[in-house]
Amino acid sequence: MNKIKIGIIGAGRIGKIHADNLLRIPGVEIIAVSDLFAGPELEAWAASRQIQTVTKDSHELIDNPDIDAIFICSSTDTHVPLIQLAALAGKHIFCEKPISMDITQTEAAIATVNQAGVKLQIGFNRRFDHNFKRVREVVQGGTIGDPHIVKITSRDPNPPHADYIKVSGGIFMDMMIHDFDMARYVAGSEVEEVYAQGNVLINPVFAEHGDVDTAIVTLKFQNGALGVIDNSRQAVYGYDQRVEVFGSKGSVAVANDHPNTAVVSTADAIISEKPLHFFLERYQAAYMEETQIFIDCLLNDKPVPVSGYDGMQAERIALAAKLSSRLGRPVKVSEALDLLKQTSVSQ
Amino acid sequence: MNKIKIGIIGAGRIGKIHADNLLRIPGVEIIAVSDLFAGPELEAWAASRQIQTVTKDSHELIDNPDIDAIFICSSTDTHVPLIQLAALAGKHIFCEKPISMDITQTEAAIATVNQAGVKLQIGFNRRFDHNFKRVREVVQGGTIGDPHIVKITSRDPNPPHADYIKVSGGIFMDMMIHDFDMARYVAGSEVEEVYAQGNVLINPVFAEHGDVDTAIVTLKFQNGALGVIDNSRQAVYGYDQRVEVFGSKGSVAVANDHPNTAVVSTADAIISEKPLHFFLERYQAAYMEETQIFIDCLLNDKPVPVSGYDGMQAERIALAAKLSSRLGRPVKVSEALDLLKQTSVSQ
Amino acid sequence: MNKIKIGIIGAGRIGKIHADNLLRIPGVEIIAVSDLFAGPELEAWAASRQIQTVTKDSHELIDNPDIDAIFICSSTDTHVPLIQLAALAGKHIFCEKPISMDITQTEAAIATVNQAGVKLQIGFNRRFDHNFKRVREVVQGGTIGDPHIVKITSRDPNPPHADYIKVSGGIFMDMMIHDFDMARYVAGSEVEEVYAQGNVLINPVFAEHGDVDTAIVTLKFQNGALGVIDNSRQAVYGYDQRVEVFGSKGSVAVANDHPNTAVVSTADAIISEKPLHFFLERYQAAYMEETQIFIDCLLNDKPVPVSGYDGMQAERIALAAKLSSRLGRPVKVSEALDLLKQTSVSQ
Amino acid sequence: MNKIKIGIIGAGRIGKIHADNLLRIPGVEIIAVSDLFAGPELEAWAASRQIQTVTKDSHELIDNPDIDAIFICSSTDTHVPLIQLAALAGKHIFCEKPISMDITQTEAAIATVNQAGVKLQIGFNRRFDHNFKRVREVVQGGTIGDPHIVKITSRDPNPPHADYIKVSGGIFMDMMIHDFDMARYVAGSEVEEVYAQGNVLINPVFAEHGDVDTAIVTLKFQNGALGVIDNSRQAVYGYDQRVEVFGSKGSVAVANDHPNTAVVSTADAIISEKPLHFFLERYQAAYMEETQIFIDCLLNDKPVPVSGYDGMQAERIALAAKLSSRLGRPVKVSEALDLLKQTSVSQ
Repeated sequence: MNKIKIGIIGAGRIGKIHADNLLRIPGVEIIAVSDLFAGPELEAWAASRQIQTVTKDSHELIDNPDIDAIFICSSTDTHVPLIQLAALAGKHIFCEKPISMDITQTEAAIATVNQAGVKLQIGFNRRFDHNFKRVREVVQGGTIGDPHIVKITSRDPNPPHADYIKVSGGIFMDMMIHDFDMARYVAGSEVEEVYAQGNVLINPVFAEHGDVDTAIVTLKFQNGALGVIDNSRQAVYGYDQRVEVFGSKGSVAVANDHPNTAVVSTADAIISEKPLHFFLERYQAAYMEETQIFIDCLLNDKPVPVSGYDGMQAERIALAAKLSSRLGRPVKVSEALDLLKQTSVSQ
Repeated sequence: MNKIKIGIIGAGRIGKIHADNLLRIPGVEIIAVSDLFAGPELEAWAASRQIQTVTKDSHELIDNPDIDAIFICSSTDTHVPLIQLAALAGKHIFCEKPISMDITQTEAAIATVNQAGVKLQIGFNRRFDHNFKRVREVVQGGTIGDPHIVKITSRDPNPPHADYIKVSGGIFMDMMIHDFDMARYVAGSEVEEVYAQGNVLINPVFAEHGDVDTAIVTLKFQNGALGVIDNSRQAVYGYDQRVEVFGSKGSVAVANDHPNTAVVSTADAIISEKPLHFFLERYQAAYMEETQIFIDCLLNDKPVPVSGYDGMQAERIALAAKLSSRLGRPVKVSEALDLLKQTSVSQ
Repeated sequence: MNKIKIGIIGAGRIGKIHADNLLRIPGVEIIAVSDLFAGPELEAWAASRQIQTVTKDSHELIDNPDIDAIFICSSTDTHVPLIQLAALAGKHIFCEKPISMDITQTEAAIATVNQAGVKLQIGFNRRFDHNFKRVREVVQGGTIGDPHIVKITSRDPNPPHADYIKVSGGIFMDMMIHDFDMARYVAGSEVEEVYAQGNVLINPVFAEHGDVDTAIVTLKFQNGALGVIDNSRQAVYGYDQRVEVFGSKGSVAVANDHPNTAVVSTADAIISEKPLHFFLERYQAAYMEETQIFIDCLLNDKPVPVSGYDGMQAERIALAAKLSSRLGRPVKVSEALDLLKQTSVSQ
Repeated sequence: MNKIKIGIIGAGRIGKIHADNLLRIPGVEIIAVSDLFAGPELEAWAASRQIQTVTKDSHELIDNPDIDAIFICSSTDTHVPLIQLAALAGKHIFCEKPISMDITQTEAAIATVNQAGVKLQIGFNRRFDHNFKRVREVVQGGTIGDPHIVKITSRDPNPPHADYIKVSGGIFMDMMIHDFDMARYVAGSEVEEVYAQGNVLINPVFAEHGDVDTAIVTLKFQNGALGVIDNSRQAVYGYDQRVEVFGSKGSVAVANDHPNTAVVSTADAIISEKPLHFFLERYQAAYMEETQIFIDCLLNDKPVPVSGYDGMQAERIALAAKLSSRLGRPVKVSEALDLLKQTSVSQ
C-alpha cells in the first residue's frame, strides 16, 4: 500500500493539530506545509516532524504532483479559491468550516469539486465526539422513536479576541454553525425554518460589530420535529456542550466530559470537576477520528462522512438565523438567499 | 389563636388534595365543601374528615359567615364569578390556575379582590417545589450573576383525555402556563416577548381542537435575558420537570426527582429509576407547602407569595404564545390583548 | 372497625416522632403517654394532640385495659422489663432498638412475648427507607444473582454527647447495630462471623469509655457472601448512608438523599447539595412507614416485618463485633455469648 | 539531546503496549525486542515499527552497549534475574509488577539495583490514572484532613484463563497487589496489618489452585486510618475501579469511567453506559503517562515515581493478606515473612 501524501495550507493552531494527528496514522506522510507567515519558527516545527517543504505560497502545494490531498486550514476567505484550485489539480480536500460566508461561492466551490471528482470533507469535528456519535446512533437505531424535540446547548468558556469578532461572520456563522450541523446530524432531517433571538449581555464589543454574544435559535425540521439551540460566548464554568433528543419512544441526552470523576465532600459543599476546558481538550479524540476517517476514505475510496453539501446546508441555516435575528421574524432556510438579496443585511 | 375556617368549592382531585393538606395544619378547620356533583360518595369522604357541610351550591359557602377563606377548585370558567362573590363577601381566596382564559375578566376579578381588601393566592404550586425554590434562591442570591438564559423543560407522562383537550384552553394556557410563571419566578423579571412553535406529533386529536401537543416557546425578558420552554404532552419515561438558569457568573440547574437512588448494573446495562410519575407524586410536598404558606399569610396578615397579578401575567404570556403560534411571528406580551381583538383567534 | 389505642412509654425525641406519626394514621388513638420526666411541658405537648393521660409511671399504661399496644421509647435498660410486663398484660409492642445490651435478657424478653402471643416489632426504621427497600427488592428478585459482596457505609454527621457515649453500649451496639440488621436484610442471609477493626480518630472521649469512633467490620454470611460495614461518628459533610450489593449477575447500589437536585456551576467549582442532614431528615418517611405497617399488622393480624428475633440477631452480631474488636481476631456469631462469659469484656 | 535507546524483554500484550507508547515519545528509540516465542509474527510487528533487532535471547539486549534502558515485560519468574543482570550492565529498568513472588528475592533485586545506581520503576500504572491521581492530590492537599477510612473497589469483568490462575500467585499477589499499592498511594501511609477474607463464588477452578475469586481485605495504616479493599474476579457489568478516602474534614471519591455520557430514557428504564470494559480501555492514558514519566526521569535524572521499594511494599502486604486468608486471623505486614517460614503456606 502506498503512502498518502498530504499538504497542509495554513499552519495555525488547527492546522498543527491536524498535522500531528496525521503523523500518528500509519501510511500517511506530510510532504509540505504552507502559511502566509512561514518563518524560522514554522520551519523548526516542520523539521521536528520530518516535513520537508515549508513555504509561504499555497500554490506550491497545489502544484506539487506528489501531493494526494490538501488540508485547508487557512482563513475562511481563502477557502473557496483554494478548494477550487486544489480540486482542479485533482487533490482530495479536507477543509475547515465554514466553506465560506457566501452561499453562492460555497455552491460554486462544491460544483467544482463535484466536476473534478475529488473528495471534499468539511471539518465538523463534533460529529466524531463519543457523546454525539452515541446520540446519533440511538436516534438512528429507533430506540427513542420519531424525534420530536432536539435541544443543543453550546457555550464557550470565553469570547474570542475583539479583532477576531470583527471578521468572524457573527455568532451564527462562526459558532452556532457547529450546532446547526449537529442538529441535522442528530435529528437525521433537514432544517426548514429558524427563528433567532440574540442579545449582547457579555461584552459591548459584539454590538460594535453588529453581532450578539448570547443567542437562542428555534428550528423546524422537515420531519416535523422542533429544535432549539442556545449559545453563549462566555460560560465562566467552562465549555458546555450538551445535546438531547426527545422522541415518541423516549429520549437520549449527553452531558459534558470532565477531567476526572472526583467528588469532594466537605462541611461546605459537595464539589465536582468543571467540564473539560475548551474544544482542544474536549474534542481531542474527535479531531483524531475525523482525520483517520478522511484518510480511510481516501485509501478505500469511500464517501466522506461530512460532505461539501453538509457544509453548505449548515451555512444556509446560519444565514437564515442571521437574517431572522436582524428581521425579528422566523425565516425559512429556502428563502434565506433571496431574502438576503432583498435586504441590506451584509452576509 | 382562633381557628381558620375554610370552605372548598370543587371537590375533584385537586380540591381533595387541598382538603387533606389543610387538615394536616393545626388551627385549620374545613367547615364546608361544595361540588356540582355532590352525592353519597362525597358525603362519605367529608364525614371521614369531620367536614360537616356538603352541598351542590357554592353560594352556600360564600354566604356562610363562619367561613374565613374559600378554596376555588372548580372548573376554570367558574373562577372569576366565584372570586368576585367571595371577595365581596370578605373571604380570603385560594384559586387554582388559571384565573380565567380571558384576560379582561381576570383583570376584573383582581380589581374586585383589591377593592375588597381580601387576599388572593393563585395555585402555582411549582414555586414551592424544593428544586425550583433553590433555583430562585441561587439566582436571587447573585451566585450566578445576571441571568442570560433561562431553560425550562416540562413534559407530561401522558396526554389528558380527549374531552379535556377540547376545553383545556390549549397547551399554552393549560400546560405551559405553569412554565410561564416559572420563567418569571426564576428569572426575577417580566417576559416582554414570545415566539411559539408547535406541532402535532403525538395524537391528531390535538389538531382537531386547534391545539398542538409539542411546543417550544422562546422568551425575551425585560432584564435582557433570553429564555426557552419546551413542552410535550407525552414523555413515555415519565414526568420531566427541569429548569436551568445560566448567567454572567455561572449557572444553576435542577433535575428530576426519583422514587429512589438505586442503580442496577448488569451485563446488559446500567439502569436507574424513572422520574416520579406525575404531578401528584412530584409536587406532593409543594402542594402542602403552598397551603401552609397561604394559611400562614392569613394568620399573620402577610402578603401571599403568588398574587392575582402573578396569575394574570402568566395568562398574558400564554395568550401571547397562543397568538404567536397562530400568527407565525413573535408577539409582545403588551400587544397580545389588542392583537387578539384584531384577529379571529379565539381565546 | 374499632380504633387501635396506643400508649407511649418514653416521650423523648423518638417517642414524640412515633406519636405524631401515629396521629396521622386514621383509626389510631393515643390514650396515654408516660415519661420519667413528665411535667408541664409534656402535658402541653400531649394536650395539643388530644392525648388525655400524661404520667411518670409507665405501669399505669401497662395496667390500662383500654390500651391495645405499647410503644417502648424509653432508655435501653428499661426495654426488657417493659416488654415482659406489656406482653404479660396482653399488649402488642413496638420497641426501639436494641432490645437490650444483654443477649440472655433479650432472649428472655422474646420468650415472654412468644408465650403471651402478642406482637413485637423492633424499630429498625431503615428497612423502610425507599432506597434500602429497593436494594432488598432487587436482590430478592434475582436481578443481581447470588450476592457475593455486601457493602454498607454508615456515617453520622456528628458524634453524640459525651454523657451519651458513656451509656451507649459502644459503636457496635449503638450505631452499627442498624447496619448489622441492614446486612441481614439486604443479603437475605444470616451473618456467621465478623472481624472488627476500630480506632479513635475523632475524639479521645471515646477512648475514655473503651469505645471507638471509627470502625470497619467484615462479615461472612451463611450463603457464602462476604460483607463490609464502615462507620464513622463524624462525617463533616453530613449523614452518609449507602448500600451496595454485588452479585453473580450484577450489582445494586443506593446513594444518599439530598434536599434538592440543584447543581451550581461557577468559575470556581461545580457544587451540589450535601446529603440530608441526619436521621430525622433522611428517615422521616421510613419512620412513618414502619408505624403504619405495625398498625396494619395489628388491624389485620399479620406478622410484623421486623421481629424480636431480628432484634436479637443484630444484637448477637454486635456482640461478636465488640468481642472481635477487643480480642483482635475474627469471632463467630455463634460463639460470641460463650466467649463473653470466658472473657473480662463487659457487655 | 541524545535519544534514549530502549530494549524490551517480553513482547506479549503489555510489552507491545509499552512499545507503542514509547514510540509516541519524541527522543525515544526502541533498539531491540526479545521474546521466548519470537518468530515471523513478532518480526513483522517490529519491522512495522522500525525496531531493528528481534531475538529470543534477552541477554542480547542486556549485553547491547547501545541500550540505555530495559523494559521487563516477561513472566514474573524472570523479573529478578533480569533486573539484576540489567542493573549490573548499567541499564535503567522499567519492570512490570510484581517484581517477584518471593520477598527475599525482591529484596535482593532491589539491593543490586541500588548498588548499581540505576533507576528502577515498577509498573503500577493505576497511579497515573486521572481519577486516582486526583484522589492523591486532594488527600495530600489537606482538603479532607487526616485520612480515616480508605475504600477501594476493584473488580475485573471476567476471570483469567484457568492456566493463568495456576501460576498467578493468587488473587492477593496477582490482582489485589494493585490495590495494596493504591492504598499506600492514596493514604500516604504504610499498611501495618491486614485481615483477609476470601471465598470461591464464581468458579471452582480457583479452589483447585488454593485460590479464591472474591475477597475483602481490611487494612490498618501507620497513620491510624483504617482501610478496606474488595476484589472480585467477575463483575458482569464491567471493570469496576473506584476509590474513596474519608477523612476528618471530608471525603473524596472517584467513580468509573464510561465510553460516553449518554443517558437513554424509555418507558422501560433510564439506561446509561457500562464502565470502560477492562484495563486496556480504562488505563490507556495511564500506561502512556507512566512511560512518559519514566523517560522524563531518565532524561532529567529525576527519581522515579514508583520505586522498587514501592513494589516490595505491595508484595509484603500481599503476602500478609495471603497468610491472613490461610490462617484466618489478622497478620502484621512486619511479621509476614517470618510467619511464612514457620508455616506450610507456599508463597
